Amino acid sequence: MMKLDLTTEKMLEQIDALGFSQAGAFNLRFNGTALGHSDSEHIKIVKKSDRPGIDILIDGAANGEEVHIPVVLSESGLHDVVYNDFFIADGANVTIVAGCGIHNDGCDQSQHDGIHTFHIGKNANVTYLENHYGEGSGTGGRVLNPVTQAFVGENSVFTLNTAQIRGVDSTVRETNVSLGREAKLFVSEKLMTHGGQHAESNMSVELNGESSSAQIVSRSVAKDDSQQVFHPKAIGKNLCKAHIQCDSIIMDRAQIRSIPEIDARHLDAQIIHEAAIGRINNDQLIKLRTFGLSAEEAEAVIIENFLK
Amino acid sequence: MMKLDLTTEKMLEQIDALGFSQAGAFNLRFNGTALGHSDSEHIKIVKKSDRPGIDILIDGAANGEEVHIPVVLSESGLHDVVYNDFFIADGANVTIVAGCGIHNDGCDQSQHDGIHTFHIGKNANVTYLENHYGEGSGTGGRVLNPVTQAFVGENSVFTLNTAQIRGVDSTVRETNVSLGREAKLFVSEKLMTHGGQHAESNMSVELNGESSSAQIVSRSVAKDDSQQVFHPKAIGKNLCKAHIQCDSIIMDRAQIRSIPEIDARHLDAQIIHEAAIGRINNDQLIKLRTFGLSAEEAEAVIIENFLK
Repeated sequence: MMKLDLTTEKMLEQIDALGFSQAGAFNLRFNGTALGHSDSEHIKIVKKSDRPGIDILIDGAANGEEVHIPVVLSESGLHDVVYNDFFIADGANVTIVAGCGIHNDGCDQSQHDGIHTFHIGKNANVTYLENHYGEGSGTGGRVLNPVTQAFVGENSVFTLNTAQIRGVDSTVRETNVSLGREAKLFVSEKLMTHGGQHAESNMSVELNGESSSAQIVSRSVAKDDSQQVFHPKAIGKNLCKAHIQCDSIIMDRAQIRSIPEIDARHLDAQIIHEAAIGRINNDQLIKLRTFGLSAEEAEAVIIENFLK
Repeated sequence: MMKLDLTTEKMLEQIDALGFSQAGAFNLRFNGTALGHSDSEHIKIVKKSDRPGIDILIDGAANGEEVHIPVVLSESGLHDVVYNDFFIADGANVTIVAGCGIHNDGCDQSQHDGIHTFHIGKNANVTYLENHYGEGSGTGGRVLNPVTQAFVGENSVFTLNTAQIRGVDSTVRETNVSLGREAKLFVSEKLMTHGGQHAESNMSVELNGESSSAQIVSRSVAKDDSQQVFHPKAIGKNLCKAHIQCDSIIMDRAQIRSIPEIDARHLDAQIIHEAAIGRINNDQLIKLRTFGLSAEEAEAVIIENFLK
């Protein structure tokens, strides 16, 4: 078992939602190289030979297993690009925990771009968790530009939970999902920006298969002078259902733009979108303050609940 | 009083929601020229000297008056462009009935582009009704590309009701509204397309003034192989409220895209959007059919109610 330094340990606590340990299937990427990895009976991790990254092969007997593939950057000025491909066999039931933490004490920009592609067979159930986090005392930027692509096969379920709560100066997130017959997609996106941060999320979901469905929920809080742009898109090409919901809290001098797109190309495509941007609920604030909380404490409680 | 032919009379019935008569303030534009006009005590119509179109001057003593400015095209192949400017004084209360009907029996495209600009003072109440309609046995296209711009002054109300129900092959609608302090905007847009028709509506509402508000409701039905695109945009730059709602019924092989944009640039901007695209309600269909209506009759009733 590798001995990890305290900074890395603390970063892993922030980005691995289920708790990282060097057991079962895992791959720990540190400052651009694999620090260690391990397979399990049903999950094999193979280093790519043509470019940085790994192939994660999950067989159909995997049932309730987890694979953890966190990324830590602590070297200032590093631009790490990694291609990870997931090949998930028919019938597999698996949870994939990814995520990236950047600790930047220097004055150069540190950037991680994870390009993740999911090839999901039939009757599978795949949960993907991705937390992004930044910290450090340096003036160098902390940048994360993730790309997620998923091809979801017949009757499979893909659950995508992403969270970026603190410390990432700039992010442009691209997500493209294609759904087969009776495939289901659940997306939960949580985002908080502060300072002069900028965050953009573009998502395109193609409902190609008959009886496919998508449920997309995005919640965000923009503080200080930060800026957020959301552009989720659902394209219904068959009998299908899609529901997109974006709720945002705006604070201070922040700006939030939400540009959802619903595109029905089939008589039986049923697509709904809802979006709301507004300031923090005043009634809730007053109620919490009557319980003795300060204005700041009350705001923190409301935001935490909103993003939970 | 001018004698109008039957075709023109019938077209006017379709496009003038309140009933056209050669009384009070009116201007009838026919195949690219003014066929006749008349002023009223508080409403003056002045022909522009530099380009086609009129200035409509409405003084502050106008209270509950109407002005009718319909346009009829019956000459195949005509491309009519007209600039109409409305100058509405503080305190005026007026209803403006515009609209265009195209009767095309020929094989050449007939097109009308009405560029309407509203300069609305303080404490005014302006209602603008615009119906678009096409008919005729020819193969020539019937095209309407309206542009509506409005500057709404302090504490004024601007109500914009547009309807395009039948016979327009192609339309691109541009609407730009700027709202001052405590100004209110109400928009109701109704659209039905059939055959191979194409309709696009772009709307941008800037909520510049403190306590301004906008309520935008769009309802549409797309039949056959027709295509519709909606792109409403609300930009909150002050303490303001905006609510955008787009509901569409998709039929046959039609395609509907809805791309609303909400853009909050102020802590106290509260903006909500809802959009839904789906097929005709099946429970309603069954209920009406149990009352003895045919499938076609039942559909017609539901659509009529939806667009009412």
